[in-house]
Amino acid sequence: MTMSNDAVRNGVDTGVLFATLDAIKQQPDLARFQFRASNVWLSGAHNRSTIRQFYGAGQEDATRTVDFKLEAGEPAVLLGKDTGPNPAEALLHALAACLTTSLVYVAAARRVPLTRVESTLEGDMDVRGALGISDAYRNGFERVRVNFHIEGEAPAERLQELVNRAQQRSAVFDMVSHGVPVTVTASVAQPSNGVTTAHDRAGG
Amino acid sequence: MTMSNDAVRNGVDTGVLFATLDAIKQQPDLARFQFRASNVWLSGAHNRSTIRQFYGAGQEDATRTVDFKLEAGEPAVLLGKDTGPNPAEALLHALAACLTTSLVYVAAARRVPLTRVESTLEGDMDVRGALGISDAYRNGFERVRVNFHIEGEAPAERLQELVNRAQQRSAVFDMVSHGVPVTVTASVAQPSNGVTTAHDRAGG
Repeated sequence: MTMSNDAVRNGVDTGVLFATLDAIKQQPDLARFQFRASNVWLSGAHNRSTIRQFYGAGQEDATRTVDFKLEAGEPAVLLGKDTGPNPAEALLHALAACLTTSLVYVAAARRVPLTRVESTLEGDMDVRGALGISDAYRNGFERVRVNFHIEGEAPAERLQELVNRAQQRSAVFDMVSHGVPVTVTASVAQPSNGVTTAHDRAGG
Repeated sequence: MTMSNDAVRNGVDTGVLFATLDAIKQQPDLARFQFRASNVWLSGAHNRSTIRQFYGAGQEDATRTVDFKLEAGEPAVLLGKDTGPNPAEALLHALAACLTTSLVYVAAARRVPLTRVESTLEGDMDVRGALGISDAYRNGFERVRVNFHIEGEAPAERLQELVNRAQQRSAVFDMVSHGVPVTVTASVAQPSNGVTTAHDRAGG
């Protein structure tokens, strides 16, 4: 079997993919990434994240030319004005996007041409938790269901394997399934005097 | 102390907020919500989620008049064309948005007028995990740091308490910190014949 590493498959340049894997194997520091977001509250449930800078492959990225902006909101029944998807819905997007990208990359590496990848996600929540009414309910989803529909030029078993492998490799699936340590710090101030107290601020 | 329940504080109608809490206490079924997203792969790391329908407060929502669309992508160094924030960045947005909304709602309920809520988030990742190079690294972030800057008309201690309470009540903070059971199923088909096999599809 001859490797045609320069083939673009499923929109992924597999030549670059395999070269990237080789480069990281030889210089593991290239694998260190830091992703970032900044968020500004606007009013009520309306806030907005700006995403652009990240560190990776040994340097601060300089290739992104625009900020990505993501709006958040809540529907009226949850006291908002529907200014954007709510945060729990945004998490479903992150999960769908990551599983899909992982699946497409794995398919590209395995030479499986895909023609369709769609998914629907559902998360069940009893808002008595998040609203502070009852400690018997967690704040977040009790469970999340993801259902893919995948079409590609490979036997059904091979297409199903892509789904399994995507779960084994997806960053967001890992985080949502297993959790991540999150540290929250804050500086606070009164608006009138502008004095900031760096109370509980993390070092570095 | 007289409650002025009809006051709009921090953009939150606290009259509606307290009425909502009372309604749920009397009729707990109103607390059952289901949030949803659907995602379509476009090419490579580019995929798009559509968010609109949800179930809550005893019925399918009919108030949202437009679909929310969220684009995903990867930067070139991760083999994409920068068509949107990457999924891990989208997760940071979800986390920032949820903590912020929780904090603002808690402040409204506690009669703390806020003038500024901003946050920056960082997540550290060694992509040897997600790229399948080494099992010594997890796929997702090793840790996430959130730093808030909050200004409001209350003593520093009270503003710090809002940060603590937001963590105790945020749906996405709960999910990202502790994880959620995620079930992934798939139907697959070959593009030529269109036959779908409901392999491993979940019931219901």
